[in-house]
Parts: sequence; structure tokens; C-alpha cells
Amino acid sequence: MPLPFGSSTRHPAHTLHLVALSLTPFSRRRDLGERLRAGHDPASILHRVLSSGPLPPSLDRASLLARASTAVARAADCGLHLIAWDDASYPAALSVIADPPPVLWVRGNPAALAPRAVAIVGSRAGSPYGLAVAERLAADLAAGGIVVVSGLARGIDSAAHRGALAEKGTTVAVLGCGADVIYPAEHRELAQRIATDGAIVSELVPGTPPQKQFFPLRNRIISGLSRAVLIVEAGEKSGSLITARCALDQGRDVLAVPGNVLTGRNRGGHALLRDGAKIVESAVDILEELGLPPHGTHATSEPEDPVLAGLPAGESCDLDALAERTGLASSRLLPRLFELELAGLVRRVGGGRFTRV
Amino acid sequence: MPLPFGSSTRHPAHTLHLVALSLTPFSRRRDLGERLRAGHDPASILHRVLSSGPLPPSLDRASLLARASTAVARAADCGLHLIAWDDASYPAALSVIADPPPVLWVRGNPAALAPRAVAIVGSRAGSPYGLAVAERLAADLAAGGIVVVSGLARGIDSAAHRGALAEKGTTVAVLGCGADVIYPAEHRELAQRIATDGAIVSELVPGTPPQKQFFPLRNRIISGLSRAVLIVEAGEKSGSLITARCALDQGRDVLAVPGNVLTGRNRGGHALLRDGAKIVESAVDILEELGLPPHGTHATSEPEDPVLAGLPAGESCDLDALAERTGLASSRLLPRLFELELAGLVRRVGGGRFTRV
Repeated sequence: MPLPFGSSTRHPAHTLHLVALSLTPFSRRRDLGERLRAGHDPASILHRVLSSGPLPPSLDRASLLARASTAVARAADCGLHLIAWDDASYPAALSVIADPPPVLWVRGNPAALAPRAVAIVGSRAGSPYGLAVAERLAADLAAGGIVVVSGLARGIDSAAHRGALAEKGTTVAVLGCGADVIYPAEHRELAQRIATDGAIVSELVPGTPPQKQFFPLRNRIISGLSRAVLIVEAGEKSGSLITARCALDQGRDVLAVPGNVLTGRNRGGHALLRDGAKIVESAVDILEELGLPPHGTHATSEPEDPVLAGLPAGESCDLDALAERTGLASSRLLPRLFELELAGLVRRVGGGRFTRV
Repeated sequence: MPLPFGSSTRHPAHTLHLVALSLTPFSRRRDLGERLRAGHDPASILHRVLSSGPLPPSLDRASLLARASTAVARAADCGLHLIAWDDASYPAALSVIADPPPVLWVRGNPAALAPRAVAIVGSRAGSPYGLAVAERLAADLAAGGIVVVSGLARGIDSAAHRGALAEKGTTVAVLGCGADVIYPAEHRELAQRIATDGAIVSELVPGTPPQKQFFPLRNRIISGLSRAVLIVEAGEKSGSLITARCALDQGRDVLAVPGNVLTGRNRGGHALLRDGAKIVESAVDILEELGLPPHGTHATSEPEDPVLAGLPAGESCDLDALAERTGLASSRLLPRLFELELAGLVRRVGGGRFTRV
């Protein structure tokens, strides 16, 4: 497990500039992703950000660098890892989004920010059904070696984290406050368990308290770390719909679990399905969608059904012909054809004729 | 209300030939739809069917016509209407399918076989959720003037009939036995209520007992009478999936209500959604899908939101500019932008800029 950094010598000046950049108003960082990807120097990007218009006195270069130093020291004190933009461990998936965080603060295992990750997000007020589904799918994904990303919120998020942990899987929580500030506080123990093998992540400097406006921004990191975002129980105004939108903007898959249509709890998820999100019933659906089919699902070769064998491929056949070929009476044939039709192996083509699918 | 026919003079010979045709094996009637639509004489079609290959002695022309006469007499006795292919009241929607029934036997009101019909079908073992959804949607459709078609089966089918009746709507039950043979018997009273304004329909001559092979055939009539088929709670092997397949073959819409993914009760419906069926949460969804938007849903003109007003259409805007235009501090703006984003009125375009949707 990587050690938390211990001395400032391991963090050259431009890391401090990246931290300082993370302290500038989000609205000023329009070109940040492009400039970072183009290899611009953080100091020059910071200069550009600060000189692009009037800012409060607290946002001058010296103050920002001082706050950055303080943050780095605080992170060292509380054992947080700092992953800066140019660190090898900065997650590749996150580096390609329009607005990547200049730095990430990580409690736990930075290696958990792996490429095979799926986000599971949803309502804070999850129903027993929603919580059970989130936990089950997270457990099954974790058992399949997928990292489960979520937001440590009440309801669906924490059910997803718990599900992954139940399978001794790796899970990542992205916060809308400092990585050392656990919100909600009742999830302190859960956070501790997550950080054992997984990670608690934030782009906000240590000690940042939770604020309403941080949560939508946090959502772009949840989707940005993930190959797909799965929505479980999102009402019409659920914040998880913003995560879904971020995923679409970032070119990630959006998946949704259907549910009860009478409670309103799934209206957001169903709207996503209407707009083309993939419907998910099981972890296998997710793995297939991501091009990771589970093991052991190759076709088996069974002796062929006599009725099927009597239906030549590519042509339709009526009951009488089929009776002649198979030696079975219509009264035996019809129920069997019905079963084969249900199994999707035979298709009625009208006028009492059947064809093989 | 039309009277049941009373005398054989109202049923000329070719009606008897149509009834006789309905007694021939289904597998012999391959071209029936085409020939009927081409205006061929039922007697000549019957001749063709009977001479196309060996048949049991009981299926000679004279025996079939005798059975047809008996059926007509029996229908008159028990008050069933006979709607033959060339009757003006033969449902137009049904006349265009590949394999239309030559005749329909109707208990109740033949005018119920109306063009504005939607089928609701699903599991015989409906869960409380499935039954509640079927009943609710049927009631709402009935209230919107839509005829609800189903199969009088236990579970979802009967919930759909009951829902329509609860709104004093019209509902049609298509049976896999004679229209005078109520199956299952426990639905005798329900059938009575359906027949008051609606109709009990079968293509099988009066007195035909229910048989397994009739049910898949009956399903093509359920979909054939309807503009769309809505699946509520179909498991992986539900017979209602055959109705859905018939609907697709007939060019009718297939709709499905989502539900619990943990019980397996919705696996068939979810598979349809995966394959492109429309997701339905309410009767409004169905009416919209059929191009029948409900009344009173036109846009209202409300005074414009000041934050929205500050976002010029067609260009993106950052927080600082928006703060300047609206006179609102960022701390006020961000939560409001978040709300507008959730409402789908504003969109984050990366780099802290927002645009109006």
C-alpha cells in the first residue's frame, strides 16, 4: 500500500500550484482540462486564472499558495494521500473529462481508483427494495472484480458501498466535503471500512465542510471515475440524475434499474430508460453492457428437440407437414410448439405455419 | 344495443360457410386472410381448404356445414351475436391481421369492439403490485374513453377488466373457449359485468371447451383488436409474451410496465423493454404513445425565473457573469442553478459554464 507523503520535498512547487488551482472558483476554470492535458505549467495556468478578471483579495496568488501548503500539511497529518494531476496514479478515466480536478485527496488505498469501476447512485431515501437491489448488484459486481463507486450518501449510495464490502470487494466513496470530513457523520464507521481496501476521495482540500453546491460538482467525479453509472431508485428530482447527465457528457454508459411505477420513487430512472439508458436486472446485464461477459455462459450442445428437428431452417412449415415429419399428432405438436415459441426457438408466421428462429 | 340475430334468413349461406371455415384446422387456413380480403367467396375458400389434402371424415363439407348450423342455432338460443367477416360490424383492426377469424361470437355489445382499444395482459399469478397497476391503468384508460381488451384470465387480465369496470368503462374479454363457456368459472360474475356494456368474444363456436392450444391463438385476437398491447408482470415464460409477439407481427405498439427485478415476475416485460418496447408508468404515457395526448397538458406561461432570464438563449455563461447580470451572489446562484439543472432547464457545459436548455 502506498505511504502517505511525508515531506514537502516529495511535492514540488507545481503540485502546490495544482492545489492552489483547486481553490480557485470553479467558474474560472473553464479551460483547465484542456490546458492541463496540453501540458501547460500549473503556475502559468494559475496566473491565467487569477488574471482573467477581478477576484476577492483572499484569492490572490500568495494566499492561495499559503492555503495550499496548509492543506498539504493537514493531509500529511491525517494520513491523506494527495494525487495531483501529473502523478502516475491520477486515474486515467478522470483525466479525460472536460473538467478534471487538479488534485484528489484520498483516504485509504489510491490504487482503488481502478479502471474497472461502475458507479451505483440513487435516492437518499431508498425503499427496502431499492436498498436491497443496490446492495445485491454491488455485491455481485464486487464479486466480479469491479470497483463500486458511490457518494457515501444515505440510502442507495451507502447500500452500494455495503454490498461491495460484504463481498470483500473494493469500493470508492467520492465526497462533497474534505476526505477527512465524513458526511453524513453516521457513516463514519462505513467510511472506515471503505478505506481499508478502497478509498474515500475528494477534490476539496482537507477540512472543507459539506456545502450544497459541492454535491453536483462531486457527481462529475463519481461518473468520471467509472465506466458506467447505474441509477437505482431516482425520483423525478434526484441528484443522481445529475450524475447520469455527467456520465452522458463524459461518454460513459448510463444504466438504470426499473421498479415500482406507483410510488414515484423510480420516475427519474424510468425517464432515463425512456431516453435510452440500458435496463439492468442483474450484475450480468452490467458486465455484458461493458463487454465483460461473465464466465461459463457459452452455449451447450444438447440433443435436438424432435419438433425443432422437423422444422427445416429458413422455411415455414404447417402442422400437417410437421406431423408427418415428426410422427406426432397435432394434439401433441401444438402444446410443444407453444413451448418452443415461448422459448423463442419457434415463431408463428401466420396462417398456421411455423418457422424456426 | 343490437339484437342477437333471431332467424336463419338473416344469415345467408355464405355466413354458414364462414362458420364452417372457422371449424377447419387452423393449419389449413394459411391464405385465409388474403383470400377473404381479396373478396373470394367463402364457399370457394372452404372448398379449397377441404381439397388441399386428406382430412378426417368428420371434416367433410356437409358435416362442417351441419355443425355450423348447429352453432348458429345454439348462439341464437344463448343470445350470442355472430359477427361474420363481411358484416359491417366486423372490427376493422382485426380484418387486417395475417390470420383473421372468419367469424366472431360475441356476448354483450358488439359495438364494444371499437377502434380505440388497448390490451392489458400479464401473469395469471399477479402480485399485489401487478394487480394494482393493471387495475389503475385500466381505470385511467377507461376514464379516457379507451376500450380495455384482455383475456379474462386470473391475475392481471381480470384486474384489467375490473379496473375498466370500476370507471364504468368498456372492456372486452377474448376467450380461448366458446363465448358462452366462461373460463375460469370463478369469473362468471365478472363476465356478466363485462357483457353489460362491453363484450365477451371468441372465434370458437359456442360450447367449445377451453383447450391449451386455443390460448396462443386467442392471443392474436387480443392484440388484433387493439392499437397497443401493454404487458404488466410477465415472467420469462408468460403466455402474454406471445400476445406481445402477435402485436409486433400485426404492427401494433408493445408497451410494458417495469417492476421489481428481484422476484423474476417482470423478466419477460423487462426483456421487451430491452428490445425496444415503450416503458409505461401511467395511462398518460399510453395515450401519448398512441398520439392521444390527454386534455389540459398545454404549456402554461409563468413569469420567468430571474436566473433563467440572466442566461441568454444559445450561449453559455459563467457564474461571475451570471452574478453580475442577476445581482445574485454565487452562494445564492449555485443552489438555484442546481435546481434549474434538475428541472432540465439549465445545463452544465463544463468549466463552470452554464447554458439554457
